[in-house]
Amino acid sequence: MQKYGGSSVADAASVKRVAQRIVDTKKQGNEVVVVVSAMGDTTDELIELAEQVSPNPAARELDMLLTAGERISMAVLAMAIHDLGLEARSYTGSQAGLITDSTHGKARIIDVAPERIQKALSEGAIPIVAGFQGVSKSTKDITTLGRGGSDTTAVALAAALKADFCEIYTDVDGIFTADPRIVKKAHPLKTITYEEVLELSANGAKVLHSRCVEYARRFKVKVHVRSSFSNNEGTWLITEDERKSGMEQAIISGVAQDLADAKVTIVGVPDKPGTAATIFENIANAGVNIDMIVQNVSVGSSGKTDVTFTCPKADGDKALKCLESIKDKINFDSLDYDDQIAKISLVGAGMKSHPGVSATLFRAMAQIGANIEMISTSEIRLSVVTRASIAAKAVEAIHTAFEMDSDNEAIVYAGTGR
Amino acid sequence: MQKYGGSSVADAASVKRVAQRIVDTKKQGNEVVVVVSAMGDTTDELIELAEQVSPNPAARELDMLLTAGERISMAVLAMAIHDLGLEARSYTGSQAGLITDSTHGKARIIDVAPERIQKALSEGAIPIVAGFQGVSKSTKDITTLGRGGSDTTAVALAAALKADFCEIYTDVDGIFTADPRIVKKAHPLKTITYEEVLELSANGAKVLHSRCVEYARRFKVKVHVRSSFSNNEGTWLITEDERKSGMEQAIISGVAQDLADAKVTIVGVPDKPGTAATIFENIANAGVNIDMIVQNVSVGSSGKTDVTFTCPKADGDKALKCLESIKDKINFDSLDYDDQIAKISLVGAGMKSHPGVSATLFRAMAQIGANIEMISTSEIRLSVVTRASIAAKAVEAIHTAFEMDSDNEAIVYAGTGR
Repeated sequence: MQKYGGSSVADAASVKRVAQRIVDTKKQGNEVVVVVSAMGDTTDELIELAEQVSPNPAARELDMLLTAGERISMAVLAMAIHDLGLEARSYTGSQAGLITDSTHGKARIIDVAPERIQKALSEGAIPIVAGFQGVSKSTKDITTLGRGGSDTTAVALAAALKADFCEIYTDVDGIFTADPRIVKKAHPLKTITYEEVLELSANGAKVLHSRCVEYARRFKVKVHVRSSFSNNEGTWLITEDERKSGMEQAIISGVAQDLADAKVTIVGVPDKPGTAATIFENIANAGVNIDMIVQNVSVGSSGKTDVTFTCPKADGDKALKCLESIKDKINFDSLDYDDQIAKISLVGAGMKSHPGVSATLFRAMAQIGANIEMISTSEIRLSVVTRASIAAKAVEAIHTAFEMDSDNEAIVYAGTGR
Repeated sequence: MQKYGGSSVADAASVKRVAQRIVDTKKQGNEVVVVVSAMGDTTDELIELAEQVSPNPAARELDMLLTAGERISMAVLAMAIHDLGLEARSYTGSQAGLITDSTHGKARIIDVAPERIQKALSEGAIPIVAGFQGVSKSTKDITTLGRGGSDTTAVALAAALKADFCEIYTDVDGIFTADPRIVKKAHPLKTITYEEVLELSANGAKVLHSRCVEYARRFKVKVHVRSSFSNNEGTWLITEDERKSGMEQAIISGVAQDLADAKVTIVGVPDKPGTAATIFENIANAGVNIDMIVQNVSVGSSGKTDVTFTCPKADGDKALKCLESIKDKINFDSLDYDDQIAKISLVGAGMKSHPGVSATLFRAMAQIGANIEMISTSEIRLSVVTRASIAAKAVEAIHTAFEMDSDNEAIVYAGTGR
């Protein structure tokens, strides 16, 4: 199973290069199934077209529209493979048996019935499957799996077809210790656990989509993240048990930054039971996704405290409006909104057995004069909020402090692909 | 049933205008089913992309690629209708039940099973169906119907749904006596017979696709060709019986020109039985479509004659190669190739009962100094071949000679649509 993202098939030349790679794999005696995303910026262009026509496009129709993107890329990729002398056949998500629920825009895969793919394989053809899309079991309408859905398609198909492994092709040599576009000395990891990838991607690293990783972990799909622009070995996803039995015992796997969140502070909240519950029930009902929450103990006799949370900038207005509407009910003093924040997260399965990680992080931050505004932790992650303006500098400092710097500069191939 | 072509949905503004027209029709109490082509030049752009990737794109994959075009237009049109407060649902050819054979690129409709369309109608929704495409009965692969296939989709669906009539929207006010881009005084016809439209479209007039007209005639679908840019009544397709019983008894319905053909002359062909058969069997086996054929009687005692035929310029090379390969077998003297010709055709059901039509045509040609190089006739058509350089002038002269000139200039709306 091979999955190629948009940057790997951005133009005709890239499509031909990918076709050659697929043909090489097949000629080495492997059975190959390919999942492909839309070419380059096609999906964004289609969304722009939808916005020109409609301020709030109907969800069913937006899915129908967006799925045109993979239809184009898979067809031209199949053509390019034909020209190299092998038989390739493109299949939509529906034709490939990707059965989903009917939640347009973020459908969940509920079944994979890849009869036509198996038939194509048995006939010696290379199936090219549209990523990101499926068909609703109940309505028979076309659905999409949401951003990054092509990775999920590949893993789900790999599981259903019992593929030996699933190669996810991208424009860098695997999963890096930090974004190589920011940290020049970042290096690709040989292995990373499913849990670490989940934490990284949930915290702003543009690696694999969470649902794809969860699916891979659940169905024990071996995933190999690598570059379509080189033949270098990339990063393999492994279980915690495999990590423990392996030689490599890095404490920290990587550092991620996330600039997409804003910070909302509710000032002067009466410190009594049930207030926080009321606030966050209302916020949740307004459809706002909360990430970090910090509540200080009330100081002195005021009986009041400040509650701070982060949420996507895109949800900021919704959050503020919701809070204003319950101002009298909660009886808080005022609201403070700040969208110039960055969340920096350090992820590593070894963290739980190694004390001192937070101290090292805080010292690195202090040395570049970065103030820490919020802290949140999980078993294998430590996140801090700081100013967006110094985020890149902080990530570099942390990368160095945890001895992740490579001797060589990281290679980003994307420039040659788009 | 309404069908909108590419120029009617060329951009977001056009899509909204068409959506308003559909909503108006529905609000007047009509059940509406819409067939839509790809937006503007989308299909040409997709073909260009295919050519960048592959010199000779695999037919199955080219169909998969091209069908992305209608997927885009139908989805955005449905969105635009939603914004006007009505429910619209887009359907691919496959979802709409357009079952075809498996001839990729020019599939034939073999069945129409529009259950989902009927269900949508019964639920009060407006179905938006992708034109030009279907699904193969045997392979379940996606097929396309060939250029102009969207008209055929509309007529086939109209027949299956027993629609009262099928409106084909274009960028002029119906079917004209001549191409209004060439003849300023051309005027739209109120009615035209199926046979006349077939002759016009087979002879270079860019009106309805032949297969669509044949389908409409066979299944008695009432077709109304009109503009999506105005509310003017357009042209209705009628039977010959309806024409005879009607008031209007025009001898001539229109004049068409075709610049797509080339003329091949085989000089010095031995005038003996079987020679022509051998020539045209070989030409046919080479996949060359022949239009007109002229063979003069051999003059004097040479026992040799010249055979001239016309074929699409695109087939010219193939025809010449084929003839060279049988030169020794046929024993002709030489070949002459001329791609600077125009075929001008006069079409009218009244022609058969009115002598003097050819005389009027020849006089009109003579008056502008146009030489007639070949002549061919059918029951309701008279075609002549002349120099391409004077074709437009000849068409205008003929239009005037047959008293088809209108007092007003023809309106071409396309400029506002693309």
